[in-house]
Amino acid sequence: MERKVDILVAGGGPAGVISAVTAHKYYLDKKIILMKSVEKGVIPCGIPYMISSLKDPEENKLSTASLEKMDIEVIVDEITKIDRDKKVVITKSEDVYGYEKLILAIGSNPTLPPIPGIDKKGVYPVYKDMDYLKGLVEDIKRCRNVLVLGGGFIGIEFADEIAKVGDAKIYLAEMLPNLLANSFDPEFSELAKKKLEEEEVNILTDTRVEEFIGGERVEKVRLSNGNEIEIGCVVLGIGAFPNVELAQDAGLDAWKGKGIWVDEYMRTTDPDIFAVGDCAIKRDFFTRKGTPVMLASTATAEARIAGSNLYRLQVVRENKGTIGIYSTYVNGLALGSAGLTENRAKKEGFDVVVGNAEAADKHPSTMPNVNKMKVKLLFSRYSGIIMGGQVAGGTSCGELINAIGIAIQKRSALSELETLQMATHPCLTSAPTIYPLVLAAQDAGHKLRWKK
Amino acid sequence: MERKVDILVAGGGPAGVISAVTAHKYYLDKKIILMKSVEKGVIPCGIPYMISSLKDPEENKLSTASLEKMDIEVIVDEITKIDRDKKVVITKSEDVYGYEKLILAIGSNPTLPPIPGIDKKGVYPVYKDMDYLKGLVEDIKRCRNVLVLGGGFIGIEFADEIAKVGDAKIYLAEMLPNLLANSFDPEFSELAKKKLEEEEVNILTDTRVEEFIGGERVEKVRLSNGNEIEIGCVVLGIGAFPNVELAQDAGLDAWKGKGIWVDEYMRTTDPDIFAVGDCAIKRDFFTRKGTPVMLASTATAEARIAGSNLYRLQVVRENKGTIGIYSTYVNGLALGSAGLTENRAKKEGFDVVVGNAEAADKHPSTMPNVNKMKVKLLFSRYSGIIMGGQVAGGTSCGELINAIGIAIQKRSALSELETLQMATHPCLTSAPTIYPLVLAAQDAGHKLRWKK
Repeated sequence: MERKVDILVAGGGPAGVISAVTAHKYYLDKKIILMKSVEKGVIPCGIPYMISSLKDPEENKLSTASLEKMDIEVIVDEITKIDRDKKVVITKSEDVYGYEKLILAIGSNPTLPPIPGIDKKGVYPVYKDMDYLKGLVEDIKRCRNVLVLGGGFIGIEFADEIAKVGDAKIYLAEMLPNLLANSFDPEFSELAKKKLEEEEVNILTDTRVEEFIGGERVEKVRLSNGNEIEIGCVVLGIGAFPNVELAQDAGLDAWKGKGIWVDEYMRTTDPDIFAVGDCAIKRDFFTRKGTPVMLASTATAEARIAGSNLYRLQVVRENKGTIGIYSTYVNGLALGSAGLTENRAKKEGFDVVVGNAEAADKHPSTMPNVNKMKVKLLFSRYSGIIMGGQVAGGTSCGELINAIGIAIQKRSALSELETLQMATHPCLTSAPTIYPLVLAAQDAGHKLRWKK
Repeated sequence: MERKVDILVAGGGPAGVISAVTAHKYYLDKKIILMKSVEKGVIPCGIPYMISSLKDPEENKLSTASLEKMDIEVIVDEITKIDRDKKVVITKSEDVYGYEKLILAIGSNPTLPPIPGIDKKGVYPVYKDMDYLKGLVEDIKRCRNVLVLGGGFIGIEFADEIAKVGDAKIYLAEMLPNLLANSFDPEFSELAKKKLEEEEVNILTDTRVEEFIGGERVEKVRLSNGNEIEIGCVVLGIGAFPNVELAQDAGLDAWKGKGIWVDEYMRTTDPDIFAVGDCAIKRDFFTRKGTPVMLASTATAEARIAGSNLYRLQVVRENKGTIGIYSTYVNGLALGSAGLTENRAKKEGFDVVVGNAEAADKHPSTMPNVNKMKVKLLFSRYSGIIMGGQVAGGTSCGELINAIGIAIQKRSALSELETLQMATHPCLTSAPTIYPLVLAAQDAGHKLRWKK
């Protein structure tokens, strides 16, 4: 079959869906097809919550019903080759699609480290496929000993969710000394660790898995400290690598382990081919170096840029780059991070000053449902520009980190945050007198004035 | 008694306390005295919550214990005269204090409209005095018919709290057609109204009180529609006027109903006298006109500017002016507003474009504790700069409005918010694909492109 289409979007995850939706909004008269490789996709951030918080894993399906209402056609297939000269793609089903504009939102694949036995049954990389994940969920629920490998977001969220169902013995193994080490400084990692330990998750930091042992199915794992533990199921939460082969084969600039090169408007080296989301290279907001941020929220921001700028550059993107901006929730504790951590900033060579503050997240502090809120802010010592922030506390941290994210993206100065106008309310926020975002800025200012 | 002090702060509310604390942080070697007129003050925003949410009204006391730790002396007294030539003040107790710098944080007083019978027992203006308010709380709890007069923040919060204790019949009377009309557009006011009606609060809009009827104590009120209703207690939540007499008597520029004139650094016409909080004039962020914003959060922001700039201008304040930025919580619904409402913007003559979005505040929308979140954003049609935002939903709206507040204070553009990088998490926020802050910006952009 041979067809022609104006805009072809490859990928059915958030990056693909939002590229298509945005393109539709900006270019009403264009025919759009979204091609997805998996019949039933899932909401990526919701995957861990298929274990316990969602009543039925099916609730986490990524629906494309809204696309059909916009006359965006959805096809289950996968591009195997791009012919840039003819401006056509060839698919797994051997169909051919001509395109005016092609958006690659082809994502990433879970990293499979070369550990002996990793292909045994019961060892689960996190593939974004509903039927696969339903199997994973059922298997884990039956399991008496579960190992989660990787102490990043996916790892700790899986451990937290597994702790909520049944009474399996749970191990969380991380090769670094701290959990969440890419996004948080140790004092925040420690809070997450405590929360998991309260749920009786066994945290094994500084620990690698040397071997998955068993027959067809995993029965034990051997750890780097020599111990062997009985394990019936393993969840691999150790990162992902961008899918670049398709782009490389088409002669686009793209590098294994890095991603597909894109300009400020998400255009690849071919101006009619865009790339967005996990498969596209990201540049750090502060250094312009490549940064391996793989988040649905980043992907959708990129998709909105690509979708609007397909035929003419109209939504002007300032050359800002990607800030890592994350939140997570562990056993009742919300954690958020935006921009650089103190560790990362120092490694990059930035001279920074840090401000800290803690306060009750309601006021007075005897109000119902009060939580302790902790805020850390990072400023460039010389310019006073905010470079990062971390928060921990109740659920309101989920939007507080976005307030900090806007401050970072708008390059706010310490003195602006010291005198910020904010809304405060007894049931919703800290008191205005001790609003921790302001107090953390003041703390940093105080250090600038009185110390070296 | 005659004493000399470096920095004298008049007022024990949030403006006074934060002026003193900030001055201490910036000028470590200065002797500071804070003079408060009321022995036991209260946290202003917490006053309605003394009725029900706080177990004991005493929990809402505004403590000055932290000041004493900083060697800031706290005195209960009140300035009756300022002699600017001699740089001394004279107090009610006939003491005399010489000052280098004087900060007036003398607040506001509740408006008492000229309604016959307003001085009857049982009719309560909201004075910020613990002992007075404890009496109010006890009386209201005993009352079978309560009228709250004024449908602003204080009024609706009192009505909501009274509805939570006992089974008194509650009326909320507002002379305008909508509740919260100064801070919200009608579609948001309507949400608050519904929430109060669910608690069986009787909402009387377009309604004035013509007379408080009774003997020594109020027994009935006569409304503007002619009806008389039995009422045992009345809470007056109809605004406040800045205290200016002291400043006027001292020859400073200050106007009744407006406030004490201050420059960008909160200096009055006398460079050694500062004014902050409710007593000081505020200028609107967008128009520079006077604006009657009386909020503890605004007051503390001003206090931080004054406290840091007493002896030399060091925390540079950009000439930004005051944005109204508020949040409230009614029967489980959080509401927030920042900047101009659509009504207000149109009245001021701004040509604006509005974007709206609604989404579940967790994702997928079947996650536990999900709420519908509604966001409205306002942009200047020509410049694309954000001018205001309103939100309604779960408690995370309390910090979401602060994210919008930062976007306003940093004069963010529509295209920046359309492609915002934000953190999203299933348990904490909407999905990245439909994050309503971004979608509201997109909706406004869509209108700009396709409509007039």
